[in-house]
Amino acid sequence: MYKSEQLAHSLKVLIENGTWKAHEKLPSLRQQVEQSGLSLITVMNAYQELEAQGLIYSKEKSGYFVVEQTSQHNLPVHVVNETIEINSVVFKYLKSIQSENIIPLGSAFPNSQLLYSAKLIQSLGQLAKQRRSYEQTPSLPPGNYQLRKTIAQKYAMQGIPTDPSDIVMTSGGLDALNLSLQALTHAGDYILLQETMFYGAWQAAERLGLKVITIPEHAEHGIDLEAFEQAILKYPIKVCMMMLNSQNPIGFTVSDEIKLKLAKLLHTHQIYLIEDDVYEELYYGQKKPLPMKYFDQQNWVLHCSSFSKTLGAGFRIGWVYAGKFSEHIQHTQLMSTLSVNSFIQNALVEYLSHRHYEKHLKTLRSTLQRYKKQYFNYLKAHLPAQCHVNYYPSGYFLWIELPARVNSNDVYHQMLEKGVSITPSNLFNITNQQNNFIRINCSFELNETFIQALNHLITIIEAALKD
Amino acid sequence: MYKSEQLAHSLKVLIENGTWKAHEKLPSLRQQVEQSGLSLITVMNAYQELEAQGLIYSKEKSGYFVVEQTSQHNLPVHVVNETIEINSVVFKYLKSIQSENIIPLGSAFPNSQLLYSAKLIQSLGQLAKQRRSYEQTPSLPPGNYQLRKTIAQKYAMQGIPTDPSDIVMTSGGLDALNLSLQALTHAGDYILLQETMFYGAWQAAERLGLKVITIPEHAEHGIDLEAFEQAILKYPIKVCMMMLNSQNPIGFTVSDEIKLKLAKLLHTHQIYLIEDDVYEELYYGQKKPLPMKYFDQQNWVLHCSSFSKTLGAGFRIGWVYAGKFSEHIQHTQLMSTLSVNSFIQNALVEYLSHRHYEKHLKTLRSTLQRYKKQYFNYLKAHLPAQCHVNYYPSGYFLWIELPARVNSNDVYHQMLEKGVSITPSNLFNITNQQNNFIRINCSFELNETFIQALNHLITIIEAALKD
Repeated sequence: MYKSEQLAHSLKVLIENGTWKAHEKLPSLRQQVEQSGLSLITVMNAYQELEAQGLIYSKEKSGYFVVEQTSQHNLPVHVVNETIEINSVVFKYLKSIQSENIIPLGSAFPNSQLLYSAKLIQSLGQLAKQRRSYEQTPSLPPGNYQLRKTIAQKYAMQGIPTDPSDIVMTSGGLDALNLSLQALTHAGDYILLQETMFYGAWQAAERLGLKVITIPEHAEHGIDLEAFEQAILKYPIKVCMMMLNSQNPIGFTVSDEIKLKLAKLLHTHQIYLIEDDVYEELYYGQKKPLPMKYFDQQNWVLHCSSFSKTLGAGFRIGWVYAGKFSEHIQHTQLMSTLSVNSFIQNALVEYLSHRHYEKHLKTLRSTLQRYKKQYFNYLKAHLPAQCHVNYYPSGYFLWIELPARVNSNDVYHQMLEKGVSITPSNLFNITNQQNNFIRINCSFELNETFIQALNHLITIIEAALKD
Repeated sequence: MYKSEQLAHSLKVLIENGTWKAHEKLPSLRQQVEQSGLSLITVMNAYQELEAQGLIYSKEKSGYFVVEQTSQHNLPVHVVNETIEINSVVFKYLKSIQSENIIPLGSAFPNSQLLYSAKLIQSLGQLAKQRRSYEQTPSLPPGNYQLRKTIAQKYAMQGIPTDPSDIVMTSGGLDALNLSLQALTHAGDYILLQETMFYGAWQAAERLGLKVITIPEHAEHGIDLEAFEQAILKYPIKVCMMMLNSQNPIGFTVSDEIKLKLAKLLHTHQIYLIEDDVYEELYYGQKKPLPMKYFDQQNWVLHCSSFSKTLGAGFRIGWVYAGKFSEHIQHTQLMSTLSVNSFIQNALVEYLSHRHYEKHLKTLRSTLQRYKKQYFNYLKAHLPAQCHVNYYPSGYFLWIELPARVNSNDVYHQMLEKGVSITPSNLFNITNQQNNFIRINCSFELNETFIQALNHLITIIEAALKD
């Protein structure tokens, strides 16, 4: 055993037998060096090992503290660093499925033929011919006032009082998430993520050098409030990043009841939530699901969304409901991309000022619902019985559980050889190694080509089960 | 005196009397703690103080080393942190001049009426009407292949062999600079900047937590190679960021001879240069000035440029000649804004495939030259004789030296009251407190309105001289 392991072990015993109590401060690195006669590096390694094991946590400039010991959940800290390299994995994956010849069941984007509405293209065509659409100095942060006003009105219609100054336009939804996280954290801070989640959240954490705590999904409610509460009691979590409506990749939408409880917990414990709500418009029911922002009384929620899933990702237009953080986020934006494309912002103002967008969304929703049902029925009928296809009434993804012995990453590689992409679960489950799920994009009409693609999937899974 | 100051002082004496030699490693923090009996914090403070004084430098994971003592230049390290807050200063400044009613002598952007060529607008109008312009999954990094190919050909025409895969499209020039710097550095690294420089470089350094060394401008050559060599010998500089053609704000263009020497130094000392060349097309002479990339044999130069100063900043389209760093930069991009607006990229491909761009540039250059000469002549004739107006044959800025006792920040505030913006030198000289320069944008026709704006400037400076 290395010296650092010996020290970590003896400290662990002291924590577990109650010598060091919950939230008590451990001796500083320097005190520990003096007491133990070990080197600073050795002591640091021991403390880092205990932190990785979820026994202690660090606070900037204050030192290390004992984590509250509970037996219900195991919530280790995932220190995101170069050894995890989520970004490399995602990069390789996206490159592998990029070719136009690949049938895009693995795509994150909806079928572009359903987006880019004819009326919007008409607006763009009209505006594009006119010099005045361009002849402005680029719109500095927070972006086009009229567009922010229109977005503010959409929030108001959901019962969320909003001023245009609350909104900051961004270069797509990922930019909104990144800017928000950057505004609220410093390197070394703890954040909380859903265990199965859009890889962008992990990439952002990696980029900013944050420590990540994850909570598992709740089978019924989506969010496990008990695990959540335990995590925030155990760790000094500053920010959560979550998707609560049509969650990517799983698909669930959290109920208003759970959202309200979550909002109360955020408020009580003074924790920020960055809400990724880019699928907010793709519900199949009568009523648009409420964002967490609705339940937020005191600006603990930053709500991020975009037009990428409804009008087209190529536009790169998103926003964050930043509230009191508006100026801070604009500062950060000014240091990175400076501003958001002004021509497209102008075109959106024109397009959104009519009822075109609502009509477009109505058609989009019903088409996605019809397609997704087709995929669900086909897969339900033809996949081996041991597979479980989750169906949720929103969005355009199906999240399929394969039998535990089928490795979804193998399925992805075999599908690629057949010219079809799918998304394996290791892109969403960064830490728990749950390797037997896949995500399928159902936004394409289930014609012969796509039936054949699904048949490849069925054959490959059947073969894997026989191995 | 604090204990840390006492320690810093005694170490300083040991360095200056030669006990500790140049590039020798100082005792580690831990060793120093043991030797001195002082606390870790005290020792760290002392070391940081010595670093700030330019007496020692740090290397990641290796410790602190003695800086070579020379008497020619004083090149202190500027540790960029929250106390400098360049970004806040820039933010306030940009907000203050944003209104459309302010006469934009302080604008960084060329007069938009000279950009957005009619042919490009025609292309955009045509493309905007067609669904296929949008119906692609968003172009992932490195961006539109055809556009990168066109840009590669432009490099090739200057004698720089370039493959489309060397180019990464970015959301404007600032994004290119940021991505390049992020790819080449880690927090705590040393970089070298020009003393008087576009504030974006300082903002990027601030954002990434880098230590900045600056070298003063050379009155004749622009770049002071002697100061440069001294700086790289003294400090473990990893990356330089410089503007060598139509430098913003001063306006000089460095000669080929100096560029060649600089390239050799980069090569010999294995230092990267991020070249900000966004004004490359705005030369008045017969021949486009060569970028540093031309003199670079081994990929030490990353060349950043954009269409913002020639076609319009609202498009947010830039690029970096990334060479072997292409993949690394794409990774970083994938974590931030994901990709660059694909519609505008498509429109540029169409526009650039004809000779339209060359014709547009020719008109743009001659107009800018004519306007700038008008401003220069007017100011030369009417400004107090103690003012010195620098004229360089490129771009659209005049850099004006006021008498030392006139504070350009006061001039800026007084001009704002008259409804006119100018840019004071404290936005470019972050560290040396040179407060008696202003930058004037000359890309607007010198009509009655702008003559009146210049008259305000003249009156305000005259009054300041009488105070």
